[in-house]
Order: sequence, then structure tokens, then C-alpha cells
Amino acid sequence: MVQQASFITSLVTSCVVFLVLNLVYIILHRRPGNAVIYYPLRLLRGEDAATVAKRHGAFTWIVESFRATEDDIVAAGGLDAAVYMHLFTAALEIVFFSALFCVPVLITLSSRSNYNQVQQSRDANFTYTSFDNLGMGNVEPSSRKIWAFLIGMFWVSIVTYFVLWTSYRRILNMRDRVQGSAYARPQQFVVLVRDIPKTDGKETRTEQVERFFSKVHPGEYSRVQPVHKIKPVEKIFSEREEALRKLEHAEAVWELSKKKEGGGDGKRPVHRTGFMGLWGPKVDSIDYLRDKSQELTPELEKEQRRTRQDLEKDAAFVIFKDRREATEAAQVVHAPHALKWKVNQAPEPEEVCWNSLYIPAWSRAIRRIIVNTLTVLLIVFYMIPIAFVAGLTTLENLEKLLPFIKSLLKIPVLAEAIQAYLPQLALLIFLALLPKIMLILSQAEGFASQSQVVRSASSKYFYFIIFNVFLGVTIFGAVFSNISSVNFLISQSNLSPTKVVQLFGSKLPPVASYYITYVALKFFIGYGLELSRLVPLLLFTFKRKFKCKTERELKEAWAPGAFTYHKNIASDLLILTISLCYAVIAPLILPFAIMYYALGWLIMRNQALNVHVPDWESHGSFWPHIHNRILAALLVAQITALGYFGVKQFPFTPVLVVLPIASAIFYVFCRNNYYPSIRYVSLWTASEVPKAKPPPGAIAEAYTPACLQEGHPGIRDRRSNLATQLDSSINAVL
Amino acid sequence: MVQQASFITSLVTSCVVFLVLNLVYIILHRRPGNAVIYYPLRLLRGEDAATVAKRHGAFTWIVESFRATEDDIVAAGGLDAAVYMHLFTAALEIVFFSALFCVPVLITLSSRSNYNQVQQSRDANFTYTSFDNLGMGNVEPSSRKIWAFLIGMFWVSIVTYFVLWTSYRRILNMRDRVQGSAYARPQQFVVLVRDIPKTDGKETRTEQVERFFSKVHPGEYSRVQPVHKIKPVEKIFSEREEALRKLEHAEAVWELSKKKEGGGDGKRPVHRTGFMGLWGPKVDSIDYLRDKSQELTPELEKEQRRTRQDLEKDAAFVIFKDRREATEAAQVVHAPHALKWKVNQAPEPEEVCWNSLYIPAWSRAIRRIIVNTLTVLLIVFYMIPIAFVAGLTTLENLEKLLPFIKSLLKIPVLAEAIQAYLPQLALLIFLALLPKIMLILSQAEGFASQSQVVRSASSKYFYFIIFNVFLGVTIFGAVFSNISSVNFLISQSNLSPTKVVQLFGSKLPPVASYYITYVALKFFIGYGLELSRLVPLLLFTFKRKFKCKTERELKEAWAPGAFTYHKNIASDLLILTISLCYAVIAPLILPFAIMYYALGWLIMRNQALNVHVPDWESHGSFWPHIHNRILAALLVAQITALGYFGVKQFPFTPVLVVLPIASAIFYVFCRNNYYPSIRYVSLWTASEVPKAKPPPGAIAEAYTPACLQEGHPGIRDRRSNLATQLDSSINAVL
Repeated sequence: MVQQASFITSLVTSCVVFLVLNLVYIILHRRPGNAVIYYPLRLLRGEDAATVAKRHGAFTWIVESFRATEDDIVAAGGLDAAVYMHLFTAALEIVFFSALFCVPVLITLSSRSNYNQVQQSRDANFTYTSFDNLGMGNVEPSSRKIWAFLIGMFWVSIVTYFVLWTSYRRILNMRDRVQGSAYARPQQFVVLVRDIPKTDGKETRTEQVERFFSKVHPGEYSRVQPVHKIKPVEKIFSEREEALRKLEHAEAVWELSKKKEGGGDGKRPVHRTGFMGLWGPKVDSIDYLRDKSQELTPELEKEQRRTRQDLEKDAAFVIFKDRREATEAAQVVHAPHALKWKVNQAPEPEEVCWNSLYIPAWSRAIRRIIVNTLTVLLIVFYMIPIAFVAGLTTLENLEKLLPFIKSLLKIPVLAEAIQAYLPQLALLIFLALLPKIMLILSQAEGFASQSQVVRSASSKYFYFIIFNVFLGVTIFGAVFSNISSVNFLISQSNLSPTKVVQLFGSKLPPVASYYITYVALKFFIGYGLELSRLVPLLLFTFKRKFKCKTERELKEAWAPGAFTYHKNIASDLLILTISLCYAVIAPLILPFAIMYYALGWLIMRNQALNVHVPDWESHGSFWPHIHNRILAALLVAQITALGYFGVKQFPFTPVLVVLPIASAIFYVFCRNNYYPSIRYVSLWTASEVPKAKPPPGAIAEAYTPACLQEGHPGIRDRRSNLATQLDSSINAVL
Repeated sequence: MVQQASFITSLVTSCVVFLVLNLVYIILHRRPGNAVIYYPLRLLRGEDAATVAKRHGAFTWIVESFRATEDDIVAAGGLDAAVYMHLFTAALEIVFFSALFCVPVLITLSSRSNYNQVQQSRDANFTYTSFDNLGMGNVEPSSRKIWAFLIGMFWVSIVTYFVLWTSYRRILNMRDRVQGSAYARPQQFVVLVRDIPKTDGKETRTEQVERFFSKVHPGEYSRVQPVHKIKPVEKIFSEREEALRKLEHAEAVWELSKKKEGGGDGKRPVHRTGFMGLWGPKVDSIDYLRDKSQELTPELEKEQRRTRQDLEKDAAFVIFKDRREATEAAQVVHAPHALKWKVNQAPEPEEVCWNSLYIPAWSRAIRRIIVNTLTVLLIVFYMIPIAFVAGLTTLENLEKLLPFIKSLLKIPVLAEAIQAYLPQLALLIFLALLPKIMLILSQAEGFASQSQVVRSASSKYFYFIIFNVFLGVTIFGAVFSNISSVNFLISQSNLSPTKVVQLFGSKLPPVASYYITYVALKFFIGYGLELSRLVPLLLFTFKRKFKCKTERELKEAWAPGAFTYHKNIASDLLILTISLCYAVIAPLILPFAIMYYALGWLIMRNQALNVHVPDWESHGSFWPHIHNRILAALLVAQITALGYFGVKQFPFTPVLVVLPIASAIFYVFCRNNYYPSIRYVSLWTASEVPKAKPPPGAIAEAYTPACLQEGHPGIRDRRSNLATQLDSSINAVL
């Protein structure tokens, strides 16, 4: 009964925290001073802080979020945000329709069985809660009732296929509307050529590319923008930028001191030139920094010239006269040996990874192998500490290990709180480090665009989370609770895939309530923090007080940042994986999953409409990634069901083999028929004649990195320029 | 010792048969009357029978075959034949280079061990031959010698990767020379459009396709050739063709009878009009058939008009003005939903499957699922009879089952002959039926071209042959020889992939000599028959005597037919699979494999140069298919090695896990970098300006099925027209 009480404690406390955070949001978000935290996207679009904040009632955000159409979201956050929102829609549909059958039918059937009781009468050590009575674990083995659970598994699978199928079509339509829009974006005219072979030495890179393209695309291409090795010039550019920033800061400090003194000369800031300003001679900051930035300017110009002349690498952007022709070129094999002259649609200028563009194909292949090997090692070896933590953090084990804790646990509230939160907290801390590591690993792979890096990181994190959190916690958490199963697992001769599936199946029901609390924690605390934006608010207040002196610094302090797709997608999909696996075995999880995705749907739409500013736009390239991983989650659920139905000694278990095969067929079907439409733009869409198209010069300018642009102001605005850019293109379109 | 004797008997008899067949060839192939059998390709090219036959000395064919360049083979048999020849080159290179290490090093190591003797001293039932002493089975478990075998496995793998890598590059270069040639073929200007959506009812199919293509390819396409449902018109066309053929035959019979009577009126042939000419009224054949064909002519014309007007289906050929533009169009996604307007390079006119073109995408998907399910069932259930045959056909089992055979076996020669041939013969008979079944299954899948059908059939047959012949014979052959292993296999709890791999590994060495005789039988008898062409010669002699009366019938009787790729490729690859699996475990198989591929290389080149006439040309589309299956064979070998090294209790066995991973990486590398160059034509190649190009009218005519062509003579020449066509295009090019 302790388990059940701790389960309820966990739910109640989570809920209380959520309500508190909600209250915080309701109070704070209507104060104009906080508009930079709660409505940064609208401010960047030029709306007024006071009006934005006042316009909103306490719960207006819910209505607005609910009413926003897909096109509104595309206009606010771009296609990527809309696709991410659709993850919530699709997941909500899947868990909702699954629940329609599973909750009423299967829970009733389970509650009318009493196998748990029978087991307890046989084995005194066997414990169960009244929640466990509502799951498949309570049904007698090889009972005819199991047919209903089998049908449930089919129902869940069919619902998932159907939702995924309609989702792909909706995403395609949405994407098509944006791609074929009358206002053309620069990216639609450009292809990226990589792995250009060596020149014969007589002609420059540009001439070589022009010769090739004037043969294979006669009369269609307009100019070539070569890619340079920008590391040296970028170094000088950053130094100058840093100096200019510091100069701006020093001037602001001086102005402030003047104001403080009331019209006097003020106190000019000084600093030391040595390491971190701790050593070296003291200088007047303003004079020193002005001199430094002025010295760096001619040096930068010289380096820019040298880069343009001598550092052309074997990649280039080729700008076409027409969208149709660029689209066509991006899909075609150009050279007789496909290893050379690899042509692809160019990424949007903001998401280009400049330093990866000219990594040769063989190096990319090797990098990929190394990175994937490292990822596998990371996934496998992270399992060991996680397994121990999961094993330790059950109360019984803690007592065994740390006897002094026993006295603490005599206080029932404390015992319950530890029981409820310790395992989840341990898990959450372990996981917080991972996404960043995965992102760094993916950057090393040599992708041409940020979105590919993020997709790859998200994929790594997803596999990590499935293997370690889901499989790891379930198997090890259950196995480590008694020594005999450890021995069972270690004695290698018993270890085979079939065995692992069966073992996994048999260990699922006992940890069902663990996952329910995990889901509840995730959505109450996670979404509470997301909505109330307490952390950014506190950080901003702190920075405004102690650090920021200039307008620019202030703006950068409240700049909201984009959605962290590489982190969010994987953890949202984890909840779906858990829900699908338990949908039939412990259907009680479904209402919680519905709440998770319904709340997520509302709050994330609010964030997309008002808060997050995209760093770049990849035109919905995330959907195939999400689609495949939802399908993978379903596959895990189907294989788990195979194991668990086998454990329940149901003679018709082999019927379930149909499901993984159906998933494989569905995967191939979508990959062949829908994936090409997202990977490429269709010729029909690209043939729509745009009303306005950017001039080739402007396109070439857009595909020049900041440090090579002539007459660049010297300070890049971090994370605020895309919002205005979105305004001028997407927004105008819809 | 019986085993060893029967092994030698088998080799010797096979060799004798081969020498006899060789003698037959040497005697017969120089007689001008046999030129139609031994040099049909040259005759169809217009060379004279007498000169062709006389020009050749007894062994000239070896010299010619050896000296022929790849371009000669392309000129004679097309790219497909050249690619098939390259299968022998590649396999020969693989087994030869593997043998360089394995034969001297590993055989020496094995022969200096004596584990077989040790085992026999422990277990009196254990038997082995002196051949077995030359394999890894003779090495002591966990001995340090096994390191050499491990290195051998790495050597074999690296050799295979290297050969496959260079092969892909050679094939690509060869293909590129042909594709970019100055004499353009009709196919290079045409794309096939499938899954065209319904028209709005106002416009015809042609208008709809024209409207679509004039938007997405403005100014590039020249005309549309719609695809019709030709089944009804084809039925009438075939009836008329049959009548014309019979008429020709009847007239020839009448002429002969006139000659026989010596200038008289002769005897006009008569026949009955009922079923199979057995019932019904007797009629004068010539009058009856002439009337019938004349009646059918206007009916055919009417049906042709109706077909052209009313039976347009949702597929079309679109003819472009230029190779470059057709090539580009064939690689691009056309419609926003990739399910519609699927555009691909058109197959050559001869290999179009007219009745499959308009099968809709969803139907093709379902057909593919059904056909693949049937194939899996076929593969699985064919295993049962094969397993029994393999189990029965060891002498000991035969004696147990059929006691009366015991007396027969007392005659030693008979016993050896049965021991040597019975298992192989049983297997060969079982296998003879399969390729045809696989071809029929593949035809039902709805492919647009013959080459796809053949590739798919070859792939099915390959899986069949690997699972049933190789795995089946090895495991079941060994397992069924004693009852305890059957029980072991049946007790399901012991059955896991790891166990199967180990079991398979442990059963390999005992059947090594079986496979050596299998390889020897295959190449001595198989190539002997192929070279001597005894069967076609006898058939032709028989037909000339009893059946053929007209020139056309005679020509059809000797027409040599194309290579049966769907049968040959799979069985050639089986030998390679066996060789790779045994390369390290029983290296003695390698010399036989070298002989197999060296002889095959010589004889098949001779057949490509002089005998087989291709039915169609798919521009080397077989290479990726062959490449992937050689890699699959290597993978089987690597997994087998894992199993067998495990059985040998070698502590460093896990090092071998690197190899399957390397194979997977190599597969992905080739698929990403080389496969696109074979699947599509590169834009660079297609941009070469041809000297002469066929007029659009001629192209449209080529893409009209015979039964819809106006003014068609009425009788299609079976299997002889491509040779002349090849002459005019490929041949002229090189």
C-alpha cells in the first residue's frame, strides 16, 4: 500500500506545483515589463509591449492557442514549428483513439479478474497495488479474455497507421502551399554543389563550375557563389566584433557614470589588458578598444581579399534563373561517378554550416562511422550507471545500502516523497547532459545544414532514451530488485533475443505505475516551467541588473531562442513509446498520455505563437524523422506485446507476428511514396510562377557568410533577425 | 574410406563426362550445317555459315574467348551480357586472391594438426576422411593456430570488398561509354509516366498529359504516346497471327507434296476445325486459313481504332526533344503528392511489359506484398521435402529405410556411384522447377520492364537457393543423420539465432566434400552441356525432321534464346556463397571454385560472342543486383565463421563481429555513391550531343505494341530482331 500512496502523493504534488506555476504565469504575463519574456516573438515583429500584454486576459492564451490555425503557426514560427506542433496533434490522436477502445473494454476486463490475488496466495512475497488490478497482469494466463487484449493491440496499430498516413498528407499539403507560394525565397533558386573535383590548375574554381553547369544546364543557371575556407577571416572578424561590443559596453558604462554624477565628466572605465583583465597594464577601455577595432578593420579587409582569391574550396552554391530549374537540378545525378559533383537543394542561408560544406565525401563517410561508433558506445555504457541508479533508488535497496536512511523513512511523508521522486529525479539529472553531447557529436559528422545536425542529434538522443530509459529502467529496474534475476541475466547461455523479449514483457506490468508518475512529472513540472518561463525570467532579471548596459545586450538577454528540437522531439516521443507499449498491458496510462499531449498541444502552440523565434527554417524536414520514430515506437510496442502475450501463455500469440510485418510494409510504403515529396520539391509546385523573385545579386549576398560580406556593420545580431525576415516572406504569403 | 572413394569417383566421372562433351563440341562445331547451333548470333548478324564454321580450329574458341575485350562483348551481346560476364571475372578474382592466402597457409596448418584423430580415439563413431584433415576441423580447439584462420577471414573479406569496389567502377565506366555514345537510342529520349490521375472528363488523356508536361517542362518535350489496354486487340492480333502462321505452314506442306509427286498438283493439306483438330468437319487447310485471316483483318483494324480512342489507361510515354532533358525528367519528383505522376526512364521498347504499365500504384503495392508472402511460404515449405531427401540420400539412411538396397550396395562400384550422385541428383531435380515458378511470381508484381521481372525472379531464386540448398542441406543433412540432433532441433526452447549459427557452424566441415562434388558436378556437367549445346542440337534435329516446314519455323527452331539470367545468376552466386563460407573452414574448395569460374569465364564469353541473342537490353541494371548478392554471400560467410570459430572455442572470436559491420558500411557506401549512377544516367553523360538521333515519329512507333502498329505484317519474328538492331546501334558506336 506504500507504493499506491506514494503514487498518489507524486501525482498530487506534481499537480500542485503545476497550479502554482500556472498562477505565476497568470499574474506575470500581463505586466508590460514582462512582455519581453512572454511575448518576445510579437515584440520582434514590431508590436508594442504594453498593448500586447494588456490585450490578454488571464486565460486568453488558451483561447488564442486553441483557435490558431496551421497557417497562423506557419506565419509565426515557420514550417518547422508547425511540423513540431503536428507531433502533438498526431500523438494526441493516437493516444485518444487508442483509449477509446482500450480504457473502457480492457480495464473492465482486467478489473473483473483476480490473478494478482491468486499469485499472492501462492507467493507471499508477491506485492501488487489496486492499480495493478486494472492491467493485463491481473488476467489469468491463457484465458479467453486475452483475445480482447489482442484485438486491442491490433486497434492501437491500425489507429497509429491511420494517423500517420493522414498526417503525412496534411504535412505535404501544408508544405506545398508554402513552397509554391507566390513570394519566392532565395533558397528556392540555389543548389549546393559538393565534392567538386580538382581543377586542372589553369582555371579557377568558379570557372570550372561555370563550365560544368553551362554544359549540363545550358541557359538555366545564372551565377556561381564559391565556398571559401573562412576560418582565418572569421577569427579576425570575431576579434573585431568582440572589441566593438566591448567598446559599446564601455561607452554605455561611461554614459551611466556621467548621468549618475549629474552632468559631470563621469568616470571613464578602465581595465587591464592581460589574461581575463587580471594582469597587465591598466588602460582606458574606450580608447584602447577603439584603437583595437580600427587596427583590425584593414587587417580584416586584407584577409577577406585573400580568402576570396586563394581559399576557394571544393564546394559552391549555384544560383539558377528559375525555381523550377533549381528544383530539377537538385534531384539529378550530375557526374558519371556519383561520388563527384554532388548536387542538392541548398539549405536556407541561416542554417548553412559554413565550415562543413567543403568536407570531402570520403571524410564525411569516415566521420559518420566514427561518430556512430561513439554513439553506440555512449548508449551502451551509459546503461551501466543508469541501471545502478534505477536499482538503488527503490526504497528497499536504499535501506539495504544506507542503513541510516531507515530512521528517516519512519517519517511517512518523507518516505513517500523519496519513494515518489527519487528515481525520477535521478533519471532526469542523468538525461539533462545528453542532448548537448549528441549535438556536438552530430556537428562533427559534416552535415551541410543545421537542420540535418539537429535531426541527427535528435535521432541519437531518441535511440539513447529508448534503450537506456525505457528498456534499461524496465529490465534493470526489475531485475536488480532481486539477485536471482541478475544471475539469470548474467548466465550468458540463457541470453537470446527471444529471452530478452520475454523477460522484458514479464517485467513491464510491475513498473507501470512508475511510468505513470514519470509522465505526470514530465507534464506537470515540464509544461509548468515552459509556460511560466520562470527560469528565463529570473535569468533576465539578473542580467538586466548586473550585466547589461547597452540596448543590444538587453535585447540579447531576453531573446527567447528557438525550440530545442534535438531535445524535445526525443522526449516527447519517449512518452508516446511508453504509452503505446502500455496501451494494452496497462491502459490506465492512456488518460495521462492524453493529458500530456493535450496540455503540450495548448502550451507549445502558445510558445510557437508568442515566444520562440526560429533560428532557421528547414521546410518541414522534421516530419519524416518524427514519422519514422513514431513507427519505431509502435514496433517496440508490438514486439513487447509479443513477449508479454507469450508470458501469459496465450496460444494465439503468433497472430501478433502480423503486426511487425505490417509496420515494415507501412514504413516502405511511406518511404517510397511520401518521403520523396518532403525530401524534394515537386516540379509542379516549383513551376508556379512567383510574383516577386529576389535578384541574383541579393541571393549571392545571402549565401555569403557575415565575415566575408563587404561593409558589414561588424556586430551580428544574435537571434533576432529571422523574425523580421519571416515577416517579409512567409507572413506576407499567407 | 567409402566416403573418400566416392568423392574421387564423383570427380573422375564428372571429368570424363566433361571431356566427352568437349570432344562432341570439337567435332561438331566446325561442321557448317551446325553453324545455326554453334554460331547463331553470327549468322543473324549476316555472316556466312560455311566461313564461320571453317574459320575455326578445334581450340580457336578458347583463344577468341580469351582475347575478346569488354567492348567486343558489349558489341555482341549488349551491356547486360557484359555485366553478366563480369560476374565471372569478379568471382574469379575473389576466389583466386582468397586462395593465395588460404590454400598455402591454412591447408598447411590444418594438415599439421591431428584433432580428427584425437576425436576418433575418443568416440569410435566419429568418421573422417583424409580430405577432412586439410580443413579447420582438424585444428585443436582454442589453439593459437586459429589466429591464422581469423586473419584468413579478414583477408577474404578485404579481397571481396576490393574486387566489388573496382568492379562497380569498371561497370560504371563501361556503361558510361555506351550511354554517352554518339549514336542515340530511342529509349534515351523517353520517360514512362505511370499513375496519372483521372482526367476531368473534358480532356483526353493525351491532352491532360500534354498540359501537365508543358507546364513542368516548358519547351522540352515533343510528344506523348499514351498507353492503351491492349488485351482485346492483342487477342484478335494473335488469332490472325496464328492463322497466318498455319497458312504458311500448310502452303509449305503443299509445295513439298508437289515436289514429292514430281511436278503434280500435290496433296492439299486438310484438317478438322474442332478441338485440337480431332472433331468437327474436315476442311481444306489453305482455303480455310486464308479466309479466316482475311476475315480477321478488318476486325483487327476496327479493334485497333477502338483501342486507340477508348482504351487509354493512366500511363503514357513522353518523348523529349533531347537526351539531357529526358534524363533530367526521369529523376525528378513531378507531382506534389509523389503517389501520382510517377516519372521514370522508359525501358527499351523490347523489354516493356505492356500489360503491367497501367497497374495503379496501390495495386502494385498489394501485388508485391502477396507475391512476397507467397515466395516466403514457398521457400519455407520447399525446405521440408528437401530436408527429407537430403536426410534419406545418405547411404546409411537409405539402408535403414529400404533394406533391399543393402544387397545392391554390396557391389562396390554401384555403392560408390549411388553415394556420389544420388544426393546431388535429387537436389538438381528439385531445383529445376523453381526458376520458372519464380519468374511467374515476379511477372504478377506489375513491373514495367522485363529486366525488373528477371531481376526480381533472380533475387527470389537466390534467397531460395541460399536458404534451402545451402542452409537446408547443411543443417538438415547433418541433423537428420542421427535422431538426437532432430530432438535437439525440435525442442523449441533451445532454438535461438545464436544456437542456429553455432549449430550451422558445427555442421559445416562434415559436408565440405559434399559441396566440392556439387561444384565439380556443376561445372563439369553444366558447362559441358552449355558448350556442346547437345540439347538444342538434338531438339533442332528433331524439329527439322518432323515439324518445321517453312523458313520461319526453321529459324525459330534454331533461334538460340537469351541468357536465362534469372536462373544462372542465382546458381553462379550459390557457388560463390559456398566458396566464401568454406574459404577458411575447408580451403580445399577454392581450387575447385577457381576452376568453376575460370571455365565459366571462358565458356560463357564464347556463348555471349557466338550463341545467345539478347531479347532485350537493360543497360547493365543487373550489376547492383549481383553486387548486393555477392555482399550477402560474404555476410553469410562471416556469420558462419562467427559460429564455427565459437564452436572451436577460440577466445578472440568476438573480433570477427567487426566484419559484418564492415559489410554493412560497405553496402551503404556503395548504395549511396555508386547505385545512383546505375539507376540513372548522369546529366554530364546525357549532355553529350549525339551525332544522329532518331526522329520523334520513329520513337513513338517503337513504343507502340506490335498489335497496335498499322500495317504490321501480321507475324512477329520471335527472338531474332534484336541482333540486327544491336548491330545498327551499339555495334556502330564502339
